[in-house]
Amino acid sequence: MTNATVKFTLESISEDLPKGDRRSLARAISIVEDGGPDANWLVQKLFPYAGRAHLIGITGSPGVGKSTLVDALITEIRSQGLKVGVLAIDPSSPFTGGAILGDRIRMQGHTMDKNVFIRSMANRGHAGGTALATYDAVRMLEASGYDVVIIETVGVGQSELAIAQTADTTVLVLMPGSGDDVQAIKSGIMEIGDVFVVNKGDLPGANKTAAEIISSLELSNTGSPWKPPVHVTNAETNDGIEEVWQSIRKHKEKLEESDLLQARRKSKVQAELIELVAEMARNNLKESLEHSPQVQKVLEQMLKHQLDPHSAANKVIEDIFQTNDRQPSNKVST
Amino acid sequence: MTNATVKFTLESISEDLPKGDRRSLARAISIVEDGGPDANWLVQKLFPYAGRAHLIGITGSPGVGKSTLVDALITEIRSQGLKVGVLAIDPSSPFTGGAILGDRIRMQGHTMDKNVFIRSMANRGHAGGTALATYDAVRMLEASGYDVVIIETVGVGQSELAIAQTADTTVLVLMPGSGDDVQAIKSGIMEIGDVFVVNKGDLPGANKTAAEIISSLELSNTGSPWKPPVHVTNAETNDGIEEVWQSIRKHKEKLEESDLLQARRKSKVQAELIELVAEMARNNLKESLEHSPQVQKVLEQMLKHQLDPHSAANKVIEDIFQTNDRQPSNKVST
Repeated sequence: MTNATVKFTLESISEDLPKGDRRSLARAISIVEDGGPDANWLVQKLFPYAGRAHLIGITGSPGVGKSTLVDALITEIRSQGLKVGVLAIDPSSPFTGGAILGDRIRMQGHTMDKNVFIRSMANRGHAGGTALATYDAVRMLEASGYDVVIIETVGVGQSELAIAQTADTTVLVLMPGSGDDVQAIKSGIMEIGDVFVVNKGDLPGANKTAAEIISSLELSNTGSPWKPPVHVTNAETNDGIEEVWQSIRKHKEKLEESDLLQARRKSKVQAELIELVAEMARNNLKESLEHSPQVQKVLEQMLKHQLDPHSAANKVIEDIFQTNDRQPSNKVST
Repeated sequence: MTNATVKFTLESISEDLPKGDRRSLARAISIVEDGGPDANWLVQKLFPYAGRAHLIGITGSPGVGKSTLVDALITEIRSQGLKVGVLAIDPSSPFTGGAILGDRIRMQGHTMDKNVFIRSMANRGHAGGTALATYDAVRMLEASGYDVVIIETVGVGQSELAIAQTADTTVLVLMPGSGDDVQAIKSGIMEIGDVFVVNKGDLPGANKTAAEIISSLELSNTGSPWKPPVHVTNAETNDGIEEVWQSIRKHKEKLEESDLLQARRKSKVQAELIELVAEMARNNLKESLEHSPQVQKVLEQMLKHQLDPHSAANKVIEDIFQTNDRQPSNKVST
């Protein structure tokens, strides 16, 4: 309770964030990460400012050098005078390995730059929740005047890919000789990449990997007006980074010229609405499991094998959608 | 349309599956994987037979030898005269690597054994859906008389962990020197393991890894009546497999003696109910997005930034829960 303590209210955040106040922005992202009525209120308030940034998804296996690439891209983007935000989605499992903490620290070279905002997003326990928090965190950055938002994910799960796909432009990062290229080609994952980067280009086989990607892209020609470029980079030395950035911008221009942008936005909005409704269902049920005797009875019947799960779900649906008109708390948070 | 074509109906499957008919079982699992009214009908019909098997979750990083371990466990379990089913959850991303196809082929040594049923579960695009299909596939195996069901997941994501936790007994597989042990200890992942296996025990450092796990388990003593054992195995040569199986059985006995089994079952049933309701919300909304002019209008307003996502979700909730009384098609499928 020193004088240095700043009191934030939802009201003050919604006023100061659009003026570029970084502490309000940090607080706002925490609020939307937590979800709930306060988050809904903030998003509703700041929604008119949203939809302005170029959203870039960057994904790839652990160890391909994504964070170093992001770091180099930040420098490139800043040299164009643009404000850039980074949302780094933490991998959801301890098994993914990789020097995550070290990577984040590496990016901290930009912390003195007031036009760079880097944030790790905590995992919310299930994929849908993390994706929703990411959508809203992007809106907070947009409302605060960020021109470019990079969403960095470790591409080890369907959920991380889904998050990457909230982007306008998706950059798929691979490295030579990892076998990733073959896996990617086989599984049709190529389709989500708008720009391909073979990083660690100083390692043997970089050009071979790039050539394999190019020929596979030619085979799977979708007739799209955009032909995904393949870059060989060395993010440590900045080699090829400028070219990657130019490709990312060209992709955005191409989207804007064609009908693709509208189609992409529509499918993104649909996906978000679907996850939001699923999340509401989850939250309402969790509450009912604590407070509603009817719902508790259904659970007991399931446990006794008197009621199968699908019939049980049908029974509780009605009960849980009666408590839908909660208001934001608008409480003072320090 | 040859004479060899067998016609399945939901009715015939529900009659033949409990008699142990393998083709009906295979078909039933496909149906529950697809979801929808047919799946609901089957689960409802066969639910009285469910809840009988010992469910064993086996999870760990790619490359630790999970499939070889499962293969060795199948042999051990069969030597006890028990029927065993295996559900291998395919990793949800091509980035996870590993010789997945090769692993599956390795297990095919048991295909001639009529009391072993091995099945890869396709990923349903999001974690919740895959978990739900797994619950129902387990029920199909139980209804068909399987005493033990092994659920094998690649522990690379929160979702895979959630699937592993549908089990009664969770086996966490690690290998020496991978650094996994340290990651697991740090992240609190240890808590989900009921039995620990350090596989590839012929590699240097196996005993050191085991000792680290043991001392970390002692530190985090939860006062639970079950003290997770740590085994060093070499699944290739069957070393230590019998001991792992004995630990798995002892864990089940301990659960049954204590209140833990009931608590575990309750939290599993709750988790399933929550995911089912979320899935119903998703499916109903997807349908409404195609057919309901009101919902389509809401989507348009979101696209034009006239309506924020949270308000939109509230608006569509009512609309989508009016179409809840669909019946199973009971169609003839060949």
